[in-house]
Amino acid sequence: MSMKKSWVESANSAATDFPLNNLPHGVFSVGDGDLRCGVAIGDRIVDATGLEAAGILRADPEADVLDTPFWNDFMELGPSAWYAYRQVLTMMLSEGMDEDVQDRVTACSVPMSEATLHLPFRVAEYTDFYAGRHHATNVGTMFRGPENALPPNWLSIPIGYNGRASSVMVSGTRVCRPWGQLKGPNDDLPRFAPSARFDFELELGAIVGQPSEGMVSVAMADAMIFGYVLLNDWSARDIQAWEYQPLGPFQAKATATTISPWIVTKAALEPFRISTPERERLLLPYLRETGPMLYDIDLEVALAPHGGAQTVIARTNYREMYYSAAQQLAHHTSSGCPMRVGDLLGSGTISGQSKDSRGSLLELSWGGKEPLNLNGGETRSFLEDGDTLTLRGAAHGKDYRVGFGACTGQIQPATELPGWAKE
Amino acid sequence: MSMKKSWVESANSAATDFPLNNLPHGVFSVGDGDLRCGVAIGDRIVDATGLEAAGILRADPEADVLDTPFWNDFMELGPSAWYAYRQVLTMMLSEGMDEDVQDRVTACSVPMSEATLHLPFRVAEYTDFYAGRHHATNVGTMFRGPENALPPNWLSIPIGYNGRASSVMVSGTRVCRPWGQLKGPNDDLPRFAPSARFDFELELGAIVGQPSEGMVSVAMADAMIFGYVLLNDWSARDIQAWEYQPLGPFQAKATATTISPWIVTKAALEPFRISTPERERLLLPYLRETGPMLYDIDLEVALAPHGGAQTVIARTNYREMYYSAAQQLAHHTSSGCPMRVGDLLGSGTISGQSKDSRGSLLELSWGGKEPLNLNGGETRSFLEDGDTLTLRGAAHGKDYRVGFGACTGQIQPATELPGWAKE
Repeated sequence: MSMKKSWVESANSAATDFPLNNLPHGVFSVGDGDLRCGVAIGDRIVDATGLEAAGILRADPEADVLDTPFWNDFMELGPSAWYAYRQVLTMMLSEGMDEDVQDRVTACSVPMSEATLHLPFRVAEYTDFYAGRHHATNVGTMFRGPENALPPNWLSIPIGYNGRASSVMVSGTRVCRPWGQLKGPNDDLPRFAPSARFDFELELGAIVGQPSEGMVSVAMADAMIFGYVLLNDWSARDIQAWEYQPLGPFQAKATATTISPWIVTKAALEPFRISTPERERLLLPYLRETGPMLYDIDLEVALAPHGGAQTVIARTNYREMYYSAAQQLAHHTSSGCPMRVGDLLGSGTISGQSKDSRGSLLELSWGGKEPLNLNGGETRSFLEDGDTLTLRGAAHGKDYRVGFGACTGQIQPATELPGWAKE
Repeated sequence: MSMKKSWVESANSAATDFPLNNLPHGVFSVGDGDLRCGVAIGDRIVDATGLEAAGILRADPEADVLDTPFWNDFMELGPSAWYAYRQVLTMMLSEGMDEDVQDRVTACSVPMSEATLHLPFRVAEYTDFYAGRHHATNVGTMFRGPENALPPNWLSIPIGYNGRASSVMVSGTRVCRPWGQLKGPNDDLPRFAPSARFDFELELGAIVGQPSEGMVSVAMADAMIFGYVLLNDWSARDIQAWEYQPLGPFQAKATATTISPWIVTKAALEPFRISTPERERLLLPYLRETGPMLYDIDLEVALAPHGGAQTVIARTNYREMYYSAAQQLAHHTSSGCPMRVGDLLGSGTISGQSKDSRGSLLELSWGGKEPLNLNGGETRSFLEDGDTLTLRGAAHGKDYRVGFGACTGQIQPATELPGWAKE
């Protein structure tokens, strides 16, 4: 597919994340102004809340759905409304549109450089999966040896656990190094200390845009997904090692989960659909895909020490996942679990096969044994205070990219320990 | 402490769960009427939404907080408001109150027998713990043998995992037997079938009534808790056995979690505070209690086959827990995880030491090997379709009880398998 041309000139650059083909949904504010729903186009944000209030573009003829600083009410309207809204907005922003429309839309838009971006939707619940084959194999090899790298259920179940929605934050929010119980292999007892093995995880997050009751097929699940964001599931490996048996990760993953500010809609990603990799074990019928449900999205991770230059430490692609978000969502409902608008599903860490395509420092530094070299001479096994971690992603068309914008977070030192927590 | 006498005669019976000492908070409707906040007193419900609208009793002089069918906005007001509201309501319902007040309150009340009860608060997020020593020992013995019954971290961490808030339902809602991936020890591959080992778990749920950012001490955590409900964490043991390694329970616990309809406030439970059992291993300072933070609450479980009589299958007490809800909540914040008003914390299964005090069928039937005998001649290893399971609980004063009401659920057969899920 080729680039769709817009009268917003900056949207016609091959370098922008936000051409007319994309139109991702976010929430922004300018100065001390209120939070508003917006759509990115080139270097501008169209004020969707303003367009609705002015009656220029409404998603629902009867009710305002963009008068809250979240896209949840819009998502509630369902796939037909999503489709119609995108059609009309695409038309209004297309090259050759009436000057009158151009003027009215321009009046309802702001330069992105003047805007602050906020969480684009109210996260109902957050589930994180473990659906990357290479990641699971790498981690399994480190913890259990190469013979037992993949758990026996891994090829049958898109393994997931419930995360903590309250800890989901938007790109740019600082991340405080967590305290936690740490116990080394030679320690008798745990101590309470700041995590010394604080890590990132490169993931894609799928946003559930329609609710469900009862079991949902993979095809129905795919139709329920509204869009995708980049997701960094910050993880304290040392807290996790001591706490995770028998009930899984808890405080190790509860400090923060950062998402990119723009929801790239499923509609924008349609041209980039690809199939999941060939199955090694036939899936049970409820998990079988009826079409291609992954996406060809290039991903990269960059690390910059405080005051230092960025180093790209990993490059990979979302196509590396063994299970699609639609399969994960279908499995999530298999017990009858109701899903809600605004549920967020983390893909699991996305690692490729090669060493430089691994989506976590745990893997990149092989458990800290092989520190990474950064530009400028520093090395890293795990994240250090002041480090800024940035995820980027884009699907590539012939002469355009559908990008996610950056997903960043800077590590702050652990807070001072309150008196009551001291020995 | 003795019974406080009310002019509502039914509240003065030693047999009622709802004397003036209790005043639990719930949500009710009558006929096709709207959902309203209410407070139980004897066999009546005081319409708190109505009292607020009429200006007779307001929690906040400025804003309505009971015009939504949830107690969340009320909880937001904080402990001083909770205290003041309880003081005034207690006075208004006390024996000897002016007849004029009695008439106005009576006009704003309904017989409980005419009301339908609903979920009393909007569940923000749900966390389930594993803090019962006897339960953990029993389950550990079955799965890993008596030498390794308790996981190494158990005496240091109130172990918990995030559950699924969307699956929390009020007492009386039917519970559908879940489908799931099942794999017996001798099977090569899993199959998709209705759970054959569907179980209950007797727990108490603590309701977080104040939000937090950053680490919270045990004393602060105790102050944040608004009240308690009975909680049944329905569990599919066969789904759990195959799915839970390495990231913990997921679909095994996502079908349903039933809570009792009345929030018994922390204030009502004050006279029944007791300490947690003696520590076998000294806790890290952030987890140490500064006072008694468990409660002496008698609990029982009854099972009735379809059309048959109830058998009480277990009797135990909340004092059996090794960790209090305050300790669990403090640990929950140790990584900096933000807590929200409406968060629900399951205590973990409450089992006593003796065989007839175990809080799950897994333990009562020792993994199905020792089926239970019910009145009427039937036996049970796990729950069967049509079974009704009822939890009850009450703290006992000299001549009164502070009760929770019943927490019930009846098991419905698994739904028919949709075509797309068939081989």
